[in-house]
Amino acid sequence: MKAVRFHGTNDVRIEEVEKPTPKGDEVLLRIGGAGVCHSDLHIIHDGILGPNPATFTLGHENAGWIEAMGDGVKGLKKGEAVLVYGPWGCGHCKPCQESRENYCDHQSENAFGGGLGLDGGMAEYMLVPSSRLLAPIGDLDPVIAAPLTDAALTPYAAIRRSKDKLTSDAFVVVFGIGGLGHVALQILKATTAATIIAGDISSDKLDLAKKHGADYVVNTTDKDVVSQIKAITGIKKAAVVLDFVGVGPTVTIGHQVVGLDGDLTIVGLGGGHLDFHAAAVPYGTRISTPYWGARTELLEVIALARQGKIKIDIEKYPMEQAVEVYDKLAKGKIKGRAVLVP
Amino acid sequence: MKAVRFHGTNDVRIEEVEKPTPKGDEVLLRIGGAGVCHSDLHIIHDGILGPNPATFTLGHENAGWIEAMGDGVKGLKKGEAVLVYGPWGCGHCKPCQESRENYCDHQSENAFGGGLGLDGGMAEYMLVPSSRLLAPIGDLDPVIAAPLTDAALTPYAAIRRSKDKLTSDAFVVVFGIGGLGHVALQILKATTAATIIAGDISSDKLDLAKKHGADYVVNTTDKDVVSQIKAITGIKKAAVVLDFVGVGPTVTIGHQVVGLDGDLTIVGLGGGHLDFHAAAVPYGTRISTPYWGARTELLEVIALARQGKIKIDIEKYPMEQAVEVYDKLAKGKIKGRAVLVP
Amino acid sequence: MKAVRFHGTNDVRIEEVEKPTPKGDEVLLRIGGAGVCHSDLHIIHDGILGPNPATFTLGHENAGWIEAMGDGVKGLKKGEAVLVYGPWGCGHCKPCQESRENYCDHQSENAFGGGLGLDGGMAEYMLVPSSRLLAPIGDLDPVIAAPLTDAALTPYAAIRRSKDKLTSDAFVVVFGIGGLGHVALQILKATTAATIIAGDISSDKLDLAKKHGADYVVNTTDKDVVSQIKAITGIKKAAVVLDFVGVGPTVTIGHQVVGLDGDLTIVGLGGGHLDFHAAAVPYGTRISTPYWGARTELLEVIALARQGKIKIDIEKYPMEQAVEVYDKLAKGKIKGRAVLVP
Amino acid sequence: MKAVRFHGTNDVRIEEVEKPTPKGDEVLLRIGGAGVCHSDLHIIHDGILGPNPATFTLGHENAGWIEAMGDGVKGLKKGEAVLVYGPWGCGHCKPCQESRENYCDHQSENAFGGGLGLDGGMAEYMLVPSSRLLAPIGDLDPVIAAPLTDAALTPYAAIRRSKDKLTSDAFVVVFGIGGLGHVALQILKATTAATIIAGDISSDKLDLAKKHGADYVVNTTDKDVVSQIKAITGIKKAAVVLDFVGVGPTVTIGHQVVGLDGDLTIVGLGGGHLDFHAAAVPYGTRISTPYWGARTELLEVIALARQGKIKIDIEKYPMEQAVEVYDKLAKGKIKGRAVLVP
Repeated sequence: MKAVRFHGTNDVRIEEVEKPTPKGDEVLLRIGGAGVCHSDLHIIHDGILGPNPATFTLGHENAGWIEAMGDGVKGLKKGEAVLVYGPWGCGHCKPCQESRENYCDHQSENAFGGGLGLDGGMAEYMLVPSSRLLAPIGDLDPVIAAPLTDAALTPYAAIRRSKDKLTSDAFVVVFGIGGLGHVALQILKATTAATIIAGDISSDKLDLAKKHGADYVVNTTDKDVVSQIKAITGIKKAAVVLDFVGVGPTVTIGHQVVGLDGDLTIVGLGGGHLDFHAAAVPYGTRISTPYWGARTELLEVIALARQGKIKIDIEKYPMEQAVEVYDKLAKGKIKGRAVLVP
Repeated sequence: MKAVRFHGTNDVRIEEVEKPTPKGDEVLLRIGGAGVCHSDLHIIHDGILGPNPATFTLGHENAGWIEAMGDGVKGLKKGEAVLVYGPWGCGHCKPCQESRENYCDHQSENAFGGGLGLDGGMAEYMLVPSSRLLAPIGDLDPVIAAPLTDAALTPYAAIRRSKDKLTSDAFVVVFGIGGLGHVALQILKATTAATIIAGDISSDKLDLAKKHGADYVVNTTDKDVVSQIKAITGIKKAAVVLDFVGVGPTVTIGHQVVGLDGDLTIVGLGGGHLDFHAAAVPYGTRISTPYWGARTELLEVIALARQGKIKIDIEKYPMEQAVEVYDKLAKGKIKGRAVLVP
Repeated sequence: MKAVRFHGTNDVRIEEVEKPTPKGDEVLLRIGGAGVCHSDLHIIHDGILGPNPATFTLGHENAGWIEAMGDGVKGLKKGEAVLVYGPWGCGHCKPCQESRENYCDHQSENAFGGGLGLDGGMAEYMLVPSSRLLAPIGDLDPVIAAPLTDAALTPYAAIRRSKDKLTSDAFVVVFGIGGLGHVALQILKATTAATIIAGDISSDKLDLAKKHGADYVVNTTDKDVVSQIKAITGIKKAAVVLDFVGVGPTVTIGHQVVGLDGDLTIVGLGGGHLDFHAAAVPYGTRISTPYWGARTELLEVIALARQGKIKIDIEKYPMEQAVEVYDKLAKGKIKGRAVLVP
Repeated sequence: MKAVRFHGTNDVRIEEVEKPTPKGDEVLLRIGGAGVCHSDLHIIHDGILGPNPATFTLGHENAGWIEAMGDGVKGLKKGEAVLVYGPWGCGHCKPCQESRENYCDHQSENAFGGGLGLDGGMAEYMLVPSSRLLAPIGDLDPVIAAPLTDAALTPYAAIRRSKDKLTSDAFVVVFGIGGLGHVALQILKATTAATIIAGDISSDKLDLAKKHGADYVVNTTDKDVVSQIKAITGIKKAAVVLDFVGVGPTVTIGHQVVGLDGDLTIVGLGGGHLDFHAAAVPYGTRISTPYWGARTELLEVIALARQGKIKIDIEKYPMEQAVEVYDKLAKGKIKGRAVLVP
């Protein structure tokens, strides 16, 4: 079968590999679609997997149909459409037993999952190492649903961390109305009545934010953006700041507009730094960088999608164009989420 | 009446002031004891209240007996022993309505309470502006109970923030077995079954830690202290780190021993910095600097003390010796908590 | 001033009483509107306040403008539009300090508040005993906003009890699409993405349910209604059942359609009984009858109303017609919520 | 191998069966001990598994050493001492993914687990259908640890349901200081600072209660027991009632001593009934009958036992005496927990 393989920094090849055979609790998927994510660029260009990483198939946002199952698999049916949960944990530690494999006790010892060091879904078929990592999607189309596994699950989990703060009288600030941010707005709108202030550097993105439910929009390049946000929130400031960019400017703005005992949640890996000390953020405010989401949170994301409450704009490309698509992505020429179709 | 008054940097005087008369919802206390806290040194020596602060009576850890009440006071009795809740909020915003005045929406506009810009309890009598700020203590002795308002409430609230993580299979690291830290150990022991690892630079303090329930102790000046802690916790590391020192070394150790999706809670105002960015602390871990506690948390602290589950070592001094006592405190010559008695 | 006074069973009179003067922390409101609630009928017709109750002014859903304040009041302005929080607690116990006066420790000793044993808001002016019981509503019209204090707060609090169960993949069943139920649907729609199944005995009400966001409707008089609901939910059944009727049939249906470890919340005082024993409801399911809501929950209700996310259909009547309006209500001739206007 | 087999009502036989061989994710245990539980008497004498149940090996409180593993098992070692988690769910639904198999969506379709319709642990060896159902116990002795799986896990989970209510200023009432109740006291003491009131009909049991940490004891046969409890709690009554008996008298007392918005948790299957209606329990109070506990809660129970914080009195018997031991149990002649040893 054909697969998009990572062979080392700046070396991605479409090549023929052997079609795997599932054993035990393993499941073989016929891939419907594999999302193309910014994180891949860090692997391909920046060498974040270290020197001399093993060769593997890319693609960590995967969906498809069950093609074959090992004899230990229960609870799934051949032909069923499923999503592949991305952050593969050990499966045995307490967080994994709670379905929170994104915080597996053994994360530091493991590859992070298929497409992130182990074989992923940019291929005709994908071998998933355990049936527990699959979530049925009913009549959703795998091509459209693939990005739910990351572009929707990650903001969903970031929002759920702060659910008790997102009451109807609270303000939430969302920075970065891109691949994750525009889904975050939809999730906030569907599951909370908090007032949403969206920030971005592009007026197109701010228009998109309004369409997806932002109550207010601000341009984060405005010099007085902190004052603009405080004028909206009043003295209590924002209960929650969700930063899907994570660059210096958004981190700097974020810690000035989050309120006492609030949540400053930095999802975007933009490399922004904050000099944290006792006076750096308001008393009580929790600053954190969460990672992906839990298996059961993926079930809740699927339920939102099946109700039509979250929609991700996608652009389909044939798998053979993987290298060109990564190039387009790096140049900012992909508008929605690119999905490779074998 | 006599009072210990702050007149400006390094200018504390014992002087005669007028005994106040309570009106409306105000209550006049006859002071039993007023705790002497390190934070006062920041006021007296470091000018943290800004240039030209107003003159006021010091003392923010106060207990006494109700001497007189305004005609609007309900639910209290003359002669009743009470603690004074310290962080006085506006009383009207949502956090204040929930009793969380420590996170009052208007904190930035207000003085922080009696003894912290407004008249406090180092005096024969103290005027408390609202009956809601008083908590009856039954048959506890006000002299002994005064430090509960801060030295017990602050660690109590810091621990309660992480209560869902403090399960019997979790590890909690406590840095600084001083005024707050030795109470934190007692609270952890009384309300959780987490395994406690205590760290300090002094072997005397580590002995004290063992006495108060630490399961393990480590000296934070040891070069391999991070390895020592990880050898105890195993790969999952500590679910919660409570840092009652907050200097560079403890912050540096703390962020290396806290686990994924954990809590790194820095209570001590030691001036330590952390360069926060995506890779700085484990994914999901919340770093924060909480402030004091809620009114209802003070009720829970009192209940612990009445059950004999927390005991604070105190040293009594006559109020007239306030200046000498602050001097001793600055020189590290106070062992327990000093309490001034009028 | 004129007031609608309860003088004993079936004895309601419009009469002249003295206009009160606020002292201390008391506030005098000029009433904008007072909602007419079914609970009043239990007072007027059924003698639930016991034999020989004291005479008092009816009306426990009150809104108006601040007319005058005692000299102890802080944080409010003359002329400001406010709602009156209904369940008046002692103000001092722990639940009251948390704003949960609906569960005041002293509830059994106290009258339940204005209009429920103490003077309420069916009058030109109302004396509110403490400023803490008032919630500003900004530019909302008090006539329209009055029913928020009960018809919206009660379902809001019932829903918030189950907030962790109301995920996007969960089902919630709502029985009774009347005064409280039709607001419950709007609150569920605004704050959760759970799938809503509404049940009523009237097809008009079921049409109303669809309009307010029900995903499915069932007629609770259908013999196979339990099967109909299970056909929608599948084997896991409903995570939450909110019963705003509370008669025998709804309680009987409810306990058959709620799932394991679910919530069966009976708000309606319809007199239904359930023979509770180990096999009566699914394992783990919590059955309860909540009462009204907390002060801070009222703030959240106001925020929903100001965003236009909850709307209560009201019918205005002059206060002088109180007796006729109660009569209409008893006969089921009031469609929305009747509000008396002085 | 030898096994204790249920062949129908009042028909238990010790007989020879084939030693199983594990495949896939299955694990074969060499049994160290199998606890003898009251629930078994309902199976053996009362026919609660229905007419013509299949023959199976009894024993649902099981511990042993790993003897052999199917080739799909990961994360366990041969010879390792483990507990067997009891309520076996489907393994795939959302509750199962969260480790809460005790509330598996498919509970009504499944046998409840080994020893409860499927082959259990009263045998030389036991085949466990999935490695996820095993929890390592380190250096704990399986013979002593076996009852932790039920006699400790069940009260542990019942207590955790109410953890937010079990603050230091709260009262908890525990009825029935038998097999589960005496463990409940130890768990409460180790993990909360709530004041404990223990009730039983036997003064021996009340002495045991004092030994295990009860602050107060009451005899539930006293006519004024409700007044006795209220004299201790004051007007707010108990935040939580844990009833490990569940007979008419305890249910009747329980609903009179639980406070507003409290938890009335009935674990004991004593057949007591409560006529539930709006006035039956205090407003807001949740009445429920929980079932067993979650997989991750078992990990927390093990951690408590390894710290020496819970100890279960056991009596060892050779497996061959199973019938006699059930007889003794039925006659109330077993003092601690009987454990059968092959």
